[in-house]
Amino acid sequence: MGATAGRTSRTSEVDVLVSEVGPRDGLQSVDRVMPTEVKHRWVAALAAAGLREIEVGSFVSPKRLPQMADTGEVVARARTIPDLTVLALVPNLVGARNALASGALSLTMPVSVSESHSRANIGMSPEEAVAQVAQVCALRVDHPRLEVEVGLSTAFGCTIEGPVDEDRVIELTVRAAEAGAGSVGLSDTTGYANPAQVRRLFTRLSAELGDRAGGAHLHNTRGLGLANVVAALDAGVRTFDSSQAGLGGCPYAPGASGNVVTEDLVFLLESMGLRTGVDVDALLAARELVLEGLPGEELHGMVAEAGLTKGFRYAGTAA
Amino acid sequence: MGATAGRTSRTSEVDVLVSEVGPRDGLQSVDRVMPTEVKHRWVAALAAAGLREIEVGSFVSPKRLPQMADTGEVVARARTIPDLTVLALVPNLVGARNALASGALSLTMPVSVSESHSRANIGMSPEEAVAQVAQVCALRVDHPRLEVEVGLSTAFGCTIEGPVDEDRVIELTVRAAEAGAGSVGLSDTTGYANPAQVRRLFTRLSAELGDRAGGAHLHNTRGLGLANVVAALDAGVRTFDSSQAGLGGCPYAPGASGNVVTEDLVFLLESMGLRTGVDVDALLAARELVLEGLPGEELHGMVAEAGLTKGFRYAGTAA
Repeated sequence: MGATAGRTSRTSEVDVLVSEVGPRDGLQSVDRVMPTEVKHRWVAALAAAGLREIEVGSFVSPKRLPQMADTGEVVARARTIPDLTVLALVPNLVGARNALASGALSLTMPVSVSESHSRANIGMSPEEAVAQVAQVCALRVDHPRLEVEVGLSTAFGCTIEGPVDEDRVIELTVRAAEAGAGSVGLSDTTGYANPAQVRRLFTRLSAELGDRAGGAHLHNTRGLGLANVVAALDAGVRTFDSSQAGLGGCPYAPGASGNVVTEDLVFLLESMGLRTGVDVDALLAARELVLEGLPGEELHGMVAEAGLTKGFRYAGTAA
Repeated sequence: MGATAGRTSRTSEVDVLVSEVGPRDGLQSVDRVMPTEVKHRWVAALAAAGLREIEVGSFVSPKRLPQMADTGEVVARARTIPDLTVLALVPNLVGARNALASGALSLTMPVSVSESHSRANIGMSPEEAVAQVAQVCALRVDHPRLEVEVGLSTAFGCTIEGPVDEDRVIELTVRAAEAGAGSVGLSDTTGYANPAQVRRLFTRLSAELGDRAGGAHLHNTRGLGLANVVAALDAGVRTFDSSQAGLGGCPYAPGASGNVVTEDLVFLLESMGLRTGVDVDALLAARELVLEGLPGEELHGMVAEAGLTKGFRYAGTAA
């Protein structure tokens, strides 16, 4: 993707894709509803900061998640932003049809390893969720540009069930790929992952799925978010979900909180010499829009507090 | 070191040594003075939680750091705790003589890579600091059990000078070892380190110093503390400083804040299957003593907030 004039992105090439999930994962975890108009401006600001992929909402029952009721509108507006991949979450075929109707072409579907979490989250067993993936992928006949990715929730442990079986995780990723998913990633929905486990599971994922091995969705519930990113990088992962100001968690995983903070993730990656194309200062400025849409909301992030280091240089810039 | 009856330490063997610096690094960064009697009980509680090494204070001018004025007393009391290595920081020969007078036998000396930080911190150039190390090591003639370790401050960057030269870092570690230090570690005094740099520098340190390559003292100023721990583990580091509740920083490095939190570090290591001998619950209980000695003090740490994961097992315990 090429950077366009007017965007502050630092480079048109990236080494790591940072996929922003704040407008979906973040906002669905907050009781209040961010006004649609602020959502538009927030998504635009995040894109202007250089983010190339943003998960802007989910197509679910507005009764269950009223915060997501305007996702169709948000998708339609976000699609007018140049060079931005607009992702939407859909739990099932109904959601996928609604998504397509609003113009969304990149869908992400959750399949939870934990039976208890799966039922609480999307009212289905893991097998039923995989069957939905197959049905959604079948829509490609009429929508050849449709892209479907799967994120395996509770892949590192579950707040309800505790530890999960790693063979079962890998088995479900294979089934999701067989169902037609273009990529299958692993999500630490609950903040249970540790770096040894992250390295092990992503190494296995890559061995099983090859170039259909997807990204890492990590939480910072116990402070291990960026430590797990380092382990995932070692295992070859090059796509990471994160959320501005660490907004988010999972309303159906009790005790889960805190996505990896986008600002801190970008700082980590750029410090390590990995290009993200994202401008940290522009990202920090975009936090104001979160507060405009959700006055008084608690924002997370260490770089926002400490600032960039003296002499900080973005990866790929001249010494 | 063997665990003694009555201690809650989970194992007598450790894979990683967690060296607690809260009573020194933490307390010297707080304006108020923790009463000596509470210090005694806090150090005892940390040892009872399974910590095998605690830096209990520093022998510096009480005019400069009144928080450390009672270090002699704290050392003497801590030395009565079985199986505990009692560390004290000394900046120079005078401090070392005072330390020895109070019975301290394990001394840590700072040598700062940054000229500006070195002068602000200990009123000497880096070369003068190395000369002090040599003089302190010479005391071994009369004190054969004296152990001297050096921590290289601002080894990853300086809040005053910005980036530091990596060759200069390695050069100073070699000089400190030549001056007689038993081990030479690297300190991210300022929270500037990133995992790529940590891996690179500790790999070089180990290549240069062999078994005299020391541990990692990392800060969490920008949220990268545990990410840097993962990188240091990869480079073979097996000793890590940390501070209960993340107390600490550096009074002479403006903007530096936040040691790696001991509670979170132990959780990280044990989750990864690395035995620390430390009991997280006992550690969490010890936080109460910080608040008793410093009422209202802000405590950090994610595990304290989120709790252990469901089904959490310590490394080395049966499945």
